[in-house]
Amino acid sequence: MSHANPHPSGRPRVVVIGGGFGGLQAVKALRGAAVDVTLIDRRNFHLFQPLVYQVATGALSPGEIAAPLRWIFRREHNVRVLLGEATGFDLDAREVQLQPEYDGAAPMRIPYDTLIVAGGSAYSYFGHDEWRTVAPEVKSLESALDVRGRILQAFEAAELEQDPERRAAWLTFVVVGAGPTGVELAGQIGELARDTLPSDFRAIDPRQGRVLLVEQADRVLTSFPERLSHSADRALERIGVSSLLGHLVVGVDEEGVTIEGADGSRRVPARTVIWAAGVEASSLAAALAGPSGAELDRTGRVTVRPDLTLPAHPEVLALGDMVRVADAQGEAVTLPGVAPVAMQQGRYAARVVRDRLRGRPTPPFRYHDKGNLATIGRAKAVADIRGLRISGLPAWITWLVVHLFYLVGFQNRLLVMIRWAISFVTRGRGARLITQRGRRS
Amino acid sequence: MSHANPHPSGRPRVVVIGGGFGGLQAVKALRGAAVDVTLIDRRNFHLFQPLVYQVATGALSPGEIAAPLRWIFRREHNVRVLLGEATGFDLDAREVQLQPEYDGAAPMRIPYDTLIVAGGSAYSYFGHDEWRTVAPEVKSLESALDVRGRILQAFEAAELEQDPERRAAWLTFVVVGAGPTGVELAGQIGELARDTLPSDFRAIDPRQGRVLLVEQADRVLTSFPERLSHSADRALERIGVSSLLGHLVVGVDEEGVTIEGADGSRRVPARTVIWAAGVEASSLAAALAGPSGAELDRTGRVTVRPDLTLPAHPEVLALGDMVRVADAQGEAVTLPGVAPVAMQQGRYAARVVRDRLRGRPTPPFRYHDKGNLATIGRAKAVADIRGLRISGLPAWITWLVVHLFYLVGFQNRLLVMIRWAISFVTRGRGARLITQRGRRS
Repeated sequence: MSHANPHPSGRPRVVVIGGGFGGLQAVKALRGAAVDVTLIDRRNFHLFQPLVYQVATGALSPGEIAAPLRWIFRREHNVRVLLGEATGFDLDAREVQLQPEYDGAAPMRIPYDTLIVAGGSAYSYFGHDEWRTVAPEVKSLESALDVRGRILQAFEAAELEQDPERRAAWLTFVVVGAGPTGVELAGQIGELARDTLPSDFRAIDPRQGRVLLVEQADRVLTSFPERLSHSADRALERIGVSSLLGHLVVGVDEEGVTIEGADGSRRVPARTVIWAAGVEASSLAAALAGPSGAELDRTGRVTVRPDLTLPAHPEVLALGDMVRVADAQGEAVTLPGVAPVAMQQGRYAARVVRDRLRGRPTPPFRYHDKGNLATIGRAKAVADIRGLRISGLPAWITWLVVHLFYLVGFQNRLLVMIRWAISFVTRGRGARLITQRGRRS
Repeated sequence: MSHANPHPSGRPRVVVIGGGFGGLQAVKALRGAAVDVTLIDRRNFHLFQPLVYQVATGALSPGEIAAPLRWIFRREHNVRVLLGEATGFDLDAREVQLQPEYDGAAPMRIPYDTLIVAGGSAYSYFGHDEWRTVAPEVKSLESALDVRGRILQAFEAAELEQDPERRAAWLTFVVVGAGPTGVELAGQIGELARDTLPSDFRAIDPRQGRVLLVEQADRVLTSFPERLSHSADRALERIGVSSLLGHLVVGVDEEGVTIEGADGSRRVPARTVIWAAGVEASSLAAALAGPSGAELDRTGRVTVRPDLTLPAHPEVLALGDMVRVADAQGEAVTLPGVAPVAMQQGRYAARVVRDRLRGRPTPPFRYHDKGNLATIGRAKAVADIRGLRISGLPAWITWLVVHLFYLVGFQNRLLVMIRWAISFVTRGRGARLITQRGRRS
């Protein structure tokens, strides 16, 4: 094992794992600090995850919602970026174990004085990891491209399929989980079938496509006030999405899903199933909990102290949706798994580093809830902003502005704005390519 | 086998194979004709191939140079699009054998009254198909994304690699073939290393990257006048591309290439090899030649009659870079394998169909050579327009205008124009994502 290009400066070394919302803000907020920062990620780009579902339906292109990490930090000379996977930690030796992302690379050890871990979370398949291949999620870009190919290919197959039952199964889309991603994705598929595709086909009418949104809870968007859940549900219905509430998916295969509710179980033939349910913290949470004795909850989140540090390891901070934060009473609190939490915690972690350089204590982390947004479709959204509950066009415009504002990179903002403007006028979707052909390979 | 949604109109059925430049123009030129058109392609999009190399270097996103075929023809109600692979022809029964592009699809037969085959060509690997996996080409979108991942990953690997020799191999890029694609790609890699990436890395200086352009002939761009070849070569040199003329690649593997020239053979360690040499006609050419007795040349092109029809099969036309066209003396002529030839032949094929409906003969096909363009880099290009030979900025502006003009779709034109404008000013490249990780999987 070797040490990779160690910083020669001798300044404190801060290693940040993960270039998502939390890690990115932590590194940004260390701009100009008297530390050497190493940002480690498996990918070479920061992904604007709240819009990944739009890639899955051909509304946006991958490059438009991602920005290369190196490009973001090209002018921060105290920041270096390493492309690789953090495979574990040696908390006593203060080293990260890194497997670089290239052929024939030997594992490396990256020493740190302060470690900030922002590994994020993934969808959990209710313990059925074998469902992952038949019901891909829309969190990673690769998976979203796979989903895009599947959705478009399903309409192609329906156009050619002669058997009415099999054709119906190709035209049935099941989205599992009615959180913001599930709702937004189901709404987009509904609009794709209703507004974008109808004049494209000759043998089928894409408007006959069915979108089923399956949710275990008794309403969609449970993180929103009840009234907004209901208006979201009504908006979904108008674009052809049926939500099946109080139902659990108990089986998934290439031919469809098995759903269980109070009325017993039933089979829904469907060739396209997309997963947006369950949460599972990054395995880095467990890798931190083991040696530090910190608590892990059943979704794998590690409990950190009120200042985001690990018990007995004040030099290690963890944040985002892979952690729960203990309150003043020592009670672990689960904050919502959304970008603003991670971003605020990222900036807070940088503040802890800066305060320590000056020998100052940092008051405990406090989350400032600025509100909650979800879009359902064209000019339809719900927003809950500090008690102000709005839906419809005003909520949608708020959603647009907020998302464009937080998107990284001037070029991306401009391109996304143009795509959205054109889609709004033409009801078209500009990036409808089938490039990854998961089904046939 | 079944007949897919046969057109009920009873009008003559025209089947077009291939949605490239030739097929697209043929279908477009049949707009409003009293025929039913079926367009068959393996992909759901028309790809603007002359810009695929820009996807390979992160300058453009895939969605920006591709347009869904269904979308292009959404208003042509006499056109239907089928997604599948033409696997063969029954010329006597007048049927195309089609394998639809979806899981569990049964093969189909598509009957025709007139068949237009525009299957295109692929790179030939000098008979070494095993090189394809280590030296991908930049003709298909998938392969271009693979190349993009490899190029960017090579710089990432170099940043982490400690051994100087291995680092140098990661920073060596070999492009095989100095036709327009090879020259343009080599130029783009040179600019990526020199202009885009230098401030992104900390351990390496990307400007030390070497780009080697290997060409069997004694000059680059042999399809251009000699003077322009030389000015292209000088422009390449200025952006760090060394062209190795009169050299043949005789070996390719994960670690580098073996090159043979008048001075003997030598080994170049290089972890990134990109293929842009040799041409091999679509296997559909052979599938037509067999039953019709038409001639095949050594690159697999079938010889068609002066009106693009097959001998003894006036109802079958073939065009583009999978054919040679016989002249009045019966001599087979090889036209350049460029988009304008295919487009003119596609429009000609449609004209043959229309003339026959009216019982009129069609004069033989004649190619109108409007000129030849290739770009080398920022503000550098060569153009040979009916004897007018220009290079530098004027040629580059001509290149820009022509490419934007022929790109399909208003949205694509706008997005590509914006990307190019931003790249021109910032020297950045907006779509630098490593999404397909061919090397590690």
